[in-house]
Order: sequence, then C-alpha cells, then structure tokens
Amino acid sequence: MAKAWHLSSRPHGLPTMENFSLRDLPDSALEVDQLRVRNLWLSVDPYMRGRMNDAKSYAASFQIDQPMTGGAIGEVVESRMEGFTPGDLILHMGGWRDGGIIGLDMMPNKLPAAALAAGMTPQTFLHNMGLTGGTAWIGLLRIAAAKPGDTVFVSAAAGAVGSAVVQIAKAREMTVIGSAGGSNKCAWVDDLGADATIDYKAGPVLPQLGAALERLGKSGIDVYFDNVGGEHLDAAFATANDFARFAICGMIDVYNDGKAQEMKYLVRSIPARIRMEGFIYTDQFIDCMEEFYADMGGLIASGAVTIRETVHDGLAAAPEAFLGLFSGRNIGKMLVRL
Amino acid sequence: MAKAWHLSSRPHGLPTMENFSLRDLPDSALEVDQLRVRNLWLSVDPYMRGRMNDAKSYAASFQIDQPMTGGAIGEVVESRMEGFTPGDLILHMGGWRDGGIIGLDMMPNKLPAAALAAGMTPQTFLHNMGLTGGTAWIGLLRIAAAKPGDTVFVSAAAGAVGSAVVQIAKAREMTVIGSAGGSNKCAWVDDLGADATIDYKAGPVLPQLGAALERLGKSGIDVYFDNVGGEHLDAAFATANDFARFAICGMIDVYNDGKAQEMKYLVRSIPARIRMEGFIYTDQFIDCMEEFYADMGGLIASGAVTIRETVHDGLAAAPEAFLGLFSGRNIGKMLVRL
Repeated sequence: MAKAWHLSSRPHGLPTMENFSLRDLPDSALEVDQLRVRNLWLSVDPYMRGRMNDAKSYAASFQIDQPMTGGAIGEVVESRMEGFTPGDLILHMGGWRDGGIIGLDMMPNKLPAAALAAGMTPQTFLHNMGLTGGTAWIGLLRIAAAKPGDTVFVSAAAGAVGSAVVQIAKAREMTVIGSAGGSNKCAWVDDLGADATIDYKAGPVLPQLGAALERLGKSGIDVYFDNVGGEHLDAAFATANDFARFAICGMIDVYNDGKAQEMKYLVRSIPARIRMEGFIYTDQFIDCMEEFYADMGGLIASGAVTIRETVHDGLAAAPEAFLGLFSGRNIGKMLVRL
Repeated sequence: MAKAWHLSSRPHGLPTMENFSLRDLPDSALEVDQLRVRNLWLSVDPYMRGRMNDAKSYAASFQIDQPMTGGAIGEVVESRMEGFTPGDLILHMGGWRDGGIIGLDMMPNKLPAAALAAGMTPQTFLHNMGLTGGTAWIGLLRIAAAKPGDTVFVSAAAGAVGSAVVQIAKAREMTVIGSAGGSNKCAWVDDLGADATIDYKAGPVLPQLGAALERLGKSGIDVYFDNVGGEHLDAAFATANDFARFAICGMIDVYNDGKAQEMKYLVRSIPARIRMEGFIYTDQFIDCMEEFYADMGGLIASGAVTIRETVHDGLAAAPEAFLGLFSGRNIGKMLVRL
C-alpha cells in the first residue's frame, strides 16, 4: 500500500517533524484517466513552505490531514490514461509519497526519450531541466533581462536555482558574483565559474560585495538574482548601477520568521532607477517552455550547466530533507531517492 | 545687481538656514547665447535635497559657495540668444535667484503663446505642465502602466506630484486612495476626487488602507505611486494585488535621516509578482513630451486637473519654502513669487 506524507498541523515559524505524518493512501482499482505509479525521485523545494500556511498564495495551500504534493519522477506501473504505458518514466506533481494513483490533476508528463537516450538522468527534470533550472533561466534572462557584459550578483549561489543562475550567466558572458554560506559551498560556486564569491557566514555582505566589485574593476551590479532577501537584497540596492534589474525569486531568510527586513538602501531605487520584480515560474513557463528546453538542454549537453545533488534516501527522510533547505544543508539540488 | 542663494555648507540630515547664503551674482555685458532675465517664479522641489549632498546622483550636486539652480519662470530683459526677445516669458533652470545672466546650460524655453493666451498662468509650467505634473503623468501612466479600472494608492496626495496623480487617475477612470497628513490636506484630496483618503498623522497607514479598500469593495491595490517610502511603501506591499506595479518617485521620509526602512511585507513581491521601479522625470521626458503636453494641456483646459499653490513671497523666503517641503507645510505646489 502506498504511503504519503500528510500535513498534520500548520507550522508557526520553522516547520518541525510534528507538522508531518506518514500515512497510508487509500487504494482502489484505476478509473479512466488515472495511472498507478511507483515514485523514484521526490523534489523538496523552498516554495513548499508557503504551501504549509493557510494564507492564499500562488500555490494552493496543503490541507490538514491531506497528502502533500510536489514534483516527482515516477515509473508507470498500470495505466488507464491515453498515451501512457507501464514502464514510462513521468514527471508529475504527486510527490511526498512513494507512489499510488495519479490523475490528470497531478499533471503527468512523459520524460522525453531522446534526452534519456542521450544520457540525461531522470531527476534532471526535477532540477536543471525542470523547476529550479527553469526558474533560474526565466528570472535571469526574462525578468532581469540580463545580457552579455552585465555584472550579476546571485544569492544562495550554491543552491539549486542559484547554481544554475551562475552557470547560465557565465555561458552568456556575464560577470558573476555568487554568495553562499561557508567555504565548502563557496568553493563549489568558484568551480562553477563564478568570477568572485562571498561567504555570508564569514562577515557582512555589503563590504564583501563592494570589495569583490573593486577586485573585478566593476562600478556596481547590473542584475541581482535574489533567493534570500534581507541583507543580500539591501547590499544589492547599495551597489546597483543605474537601470539595474532585480529578479526576486525567493526570500528564504524571511519565510519562517516573518520579521521586518531592514532596508537601508532601498531609497537608491530612485536615483539609480532600479527595477525590482517578483516572479514565479509557473506564470512564465508556458510562454517560453520550448525555448527553455532547447537552450537549457544544449547547455547541459555541452557541460556548461551541471549540478550537484544532495540526496536523502527513502520516503521517511523527506521531511528532514525539506527542513534542511532552511538551514543551508544542501549543496545544489535537494532530492529524495526512493 | 542680481542675487542668488548659494550653498554655504552641506547639510547633515534636515537642512537648516545656515546651509544657505544670499550673495550678489557677478554682472557683465552679455555674450553671444546669453540672456538677461528677471525671474518671476521660483520652484522648490524635494529632489533638490539630494543635490545638496556631495554624492554622485542623477542631478549634479550643488557646489559649495556656488549659486544654486532649479526651475524658474523669468522674463527676458535683454537678449543675445537667437529666438528670444525682451518681454518673452521663459522656463529655465536658473532658479534660486532673482535674475541675472542665463546661458544655454540653463535650458531656456519660451512658454507657448497659445497656452498663455488661453489663460494658463506662467507658473503652471513649474507644476502641472512641468516637472511635477510630468512626473505624475510619466510615473502613473508609463512606469506603473495604470489603466482604467485599476485601484491606485498614492502617498503625499496633497503634494504637487501626488495631487496631479489623483486627478489624472480619476480622469482615466481609476479608483484612487490618497494619503496625506492632516484633515485639511485630506479634505483637499477629497475635493480633487479621490475615492478615499487616509490621514497618516491620525494613525498607522496599513489598517487605514485596509479599511478604505474594504469600504470601496476592492481586494487590494493595482498601482502604488510612492512619494514617501517607509510605512506607506510597506502598506502598499501588504495590500498589493497580483501583478501590481509600484512607481517609486520619491521617499521623502528618508531623504534626511538615512535610517533603514522596516519592510515587513516586501516578501509579498514574490507571491503577488509585484514590479517596483524607481524613475526620474528627465530620463523619460524627451520621449513623451509631445504626448504629455497635449494630454495634460487638455486635462488642465477642461478643469479635470487643477492645483493649489502654496506661495512664499520674495527671494529671501526661498530656503524657508524649501525647508517647508520636509515638514509638510505645503498643499499642492510650493512656489516662491518674486
């Protein structure tokens, strides 16, 4: 019998194990337009924190005592859905569980056979060819309209989205400054090709960012890709060149505590004519899906974009993997392997 | 002999009278491409506070012991500049003085005879047909892309820019909520046609804004026109509808104190996909000057856009008029009449 993590209570601040409970899923014969799947990989992502709240947001709230959902890679075991046959590998939204019945509401999509045949791993569709890579690509190239020659600052540069931003920007001939927490992560961001790295755990962000810009001979930043908010965002306002563009992807610093952010340099919006824009992947994805797959597929195939995976094994480990996102325990993409 | 206010020292925080000194201007015979003018009206504007600093910004810094400059309406007394003859009324940048020699660097422009003949007052080119009206028009319609049906929130709604925003928005069939300090100013904003007003001196902004939206049956704001920053800006983030646009025109709350702004709702940038953009008039003006003059001229002629002038008399009163901008002593446009 398939099992799934259910939301047992809503967190106040940082979630804890008590907010999750692992329960059996109901079983039955398949109806038309249903699949039975065995999941292979589950995604845990920071945006899921918002879904644990009751507040209206862009992604529907998880409901108390109901199974949680999220990106997953599964293998079709039984099919009453046209176009799917047992053995197919699919990307779908029925994550946080080891398998079970998947309907059209879980948006099952077969992984492209050509990509798999060329050696792309299935879980790539949970990161660089999926949500996190798409978020990086859209935010950098569409929302921030970054172009060759720009100086790009990216926070959480060792994360799944940030590491993709670093590499796409380098492939497009931009100068990249990445911020990450700790020398281990910074070393990986260096390896990805960043022109400079900042260890935000080693000291305040702004002086380090200023020093990096000076070393690189740059007057300021043209683009900021924000994954964290707070001190990083303020440092970006402080160092923005005229007409800088900020793509606001996440503010993981404040998802849990809800504290006010102290913005000393927000006022530079006006003299520097800064454009700051929040965005989410799903608004933009349909319009640019084809271009994204072609471009990102090429970057991955050529080795210009790689990833590191932080893997937790077994369904039981899913909440721990998720909670690790908020304490910086992942390098690259956090995944659960079943 | 003409006199001008000179910058005698740079302010720390709020400027004081000691930062200004009134001194004689050098006199001489006119050279080619010079005018001698007698000024009639001087403009004082919040952006001039930035010019008192040494920092690089979009408008050049005033220099110590040099005459200050700014928008002015003058009458030509003597001309060696082609196209100008004595008696012409001109808009130029040689303000903060009672007259003297004006070169091409002060950008003299004759006021359009047709507008004057139709009864438009010369000083209108210092407000609704000039810097403040243009700033309102560009920020609302171009930067925030406000459209009929939108719900617009504007701070400093009793100021020169804000009052123009209220009226342009109403003429374009938007719902408008204006914030101002004190019942006197709020009553004027009401008279301008605002659907609701908030007195920020009477209590915190956010609960008042929430209550106004509820009274109007609106889910939130689509556009925020920011003149003040701080608490108003945070309230705008708190109440923004999806895909809201913020035009950041000024942050008078923080020009003088340089304190950090406490932003509790900035994180809503992401789920609500808010676009916030700082802008300045001079970047945009050339591109839309013709359209602005035609549109704004029509709105003024029809009575859809009016203004109140807060007038100080005599050159000696210029610094006091300027300082009054930072303590909210103006309703509408603050002017000095010579």
